[in-house]
Amino acid sequence: MGGGAEAQMEMVGKAFVKHYYGLFDAGSRPALAGLYHPSTSILSFEGRRFDGADSIGRHLSQLPFDLCRHMVATVDCQGSPFAAGGILVFVTGSLQLSGEEHSLSFSQMFQLVQSTEGRFYVQNDIFRLNYG
Amino acid sequence: MGGGAEAQMEMVGKAFVKHYYGLFDAGSRPALAGLYHPSTSILSFEGRRFDGADSIGRHLSQLPFDLCRHMVATVDCQGSPFAAGGILVFVTGSLQLSGEEHSLSFSQMFQLVQSTEGRFYVQNDIFRLNYG
Repeated sequence: MGGGAEAQMEMVGKAFVKHYYGLFDAGSRPALAGLYHPSTSILSFEGRRFDGADSIGRHLSQLPFDLCRHMVATVDCQGSPFAAGGILVFVTGSLQLSGEEHSLSFSQMFQLVQSTEGRFYVQNDIFRLNYG
Repeated sequence: MGGGAEAQMEMVGKAFVKHYYGLFDAGSRPALAGLYHPSTSILSFEGRRFDGADSIGRHLSQLPFDLCRHMVATVDCQGSPFAAGGILVFVTGSLQLSGEEHSLSFSQMFQLVQSTEGRFYVQNDIFRLNYG
């Protein structure tokens, strides 16, 4: 893969991360459902599995806190050569919940895939808090 | 994907994790190269990128410590539907380097893909230490 394609992938991955946590932290969690595929997307959230945009959106909307803030420390992107325009995005950072004194360390990976209309959606999403 | 396929994927992912860190921690890091594809595999290691089994194996072999121990806390697996038998494996845990007092928190993801001979190899590998 040429340097141009890599740079573009990195740009898409980083723009996605900004958009995703932007919605999340603005209290617009129900809107996150629109980033997933209606049937094929999978979220593993702290070991619990959710399939499809509705189920994933409902889970994210109902997390037991009002507001939070993701502080992204690192974003790594790689091409996923078998998916159409696929990009693996790997994020580490910390998470501050409203009303909590201490932040939590987290890591999360996404596989972004392009739909036939050329729009990216989240095919795979795995989230974990890190306990050192 | 049926429950049987999921269970099998989870079994493959967990067996891979055990094998990978087993080799790593037994001081057999040069043998890790054999788990990657000669040309297409990608490793992102703390933000540095390596392409192909030789380059990846060389980097892992030359990490500046003799022995270490990975303590795996969580392993999550998901199917990667566009890759042949593809499995996304997401690991969190801690890492104890010989001679160091404190362990380090890490997270790592792999995309395993089946070769035409039915053998799994690591197509994608992203490693990060987590600083809470």
